[in-house]
Amino acid sequence: MAKIDIGRVFHALGDPTRRAIVDRLSTAPSSVSRLAEPLEITVTAVAQHLAVLEACGLVKTEKVGRVRTCRIESAGFDALQNWIAEHRTQWERRLDALREIVEDDE
Amino acid sequence: MAKIDIGRVFHALGDPTRRAIVDRLSTAPSSVSRLAEPLEITVTAVAQHLAVLEACGLVKTEKVGRVRTCRIESAGFDALQNWIAEHRTQWERRLDALREIVEDDE
Repeated sequence: MAKIDIGRVFHALGDPTRRAIVDRLSTAPSSVSRLAEPLEITVTAVAQHLAVLEACGLVKTEKVGRVRTCRIESAGFDALQNWIAEHRTQWERRLDALREIVEDDE
Repeated sequence: MAKIDIGRVFHALGDPTRRAIVDRLSTAPSSVSRLAEPLEITVTAVAQHLAVLEACGLVKTEKVGRVRTCRIESAGFDALQNWIAEHRTQWERRLDALREIVEDDE
């Protein structure tokens, strides 16, 4: 899989229907039509949401015979986690530096 | 701070300018006008982006005298991290269960 575009991951998850799809797939893989049912949207609409989720590495779909099965893909989640960790490291390092200055003054 | 709306966090970070603001603030707190400069947008536009980031717990702003200082707030990041962890736990538990079934069959 190519490098994940973190902006696309955030954009994809900003939509409540797409988060509902990710919720469902986290508990078990599913066919597209089974995903559509409780969401009360058309199979076409689900397929469009899946395309967005697939493009940013959050979901993987695979067609076997006539059924397309969807499952969670970890790449998008890994990218999210890395993004958070990088930012957290930056400001925690800064807070540690400030703490040292304060302690040196005491 | 009230409970974070994860949908708002994802929506907020789906915007490249808002991510640029979070990047900057991760390295150091900043005034609104200093944030605006390299982004080449108006102070008003930055203030609007900051309002979105503040509403979902990613940034905190504080006015001291005439200057509004902005800094990273960890609440939004914590909410993101929890959301990822919850989903990851679900599908990893499922994969573990599958693995056990396979091993039992061997």
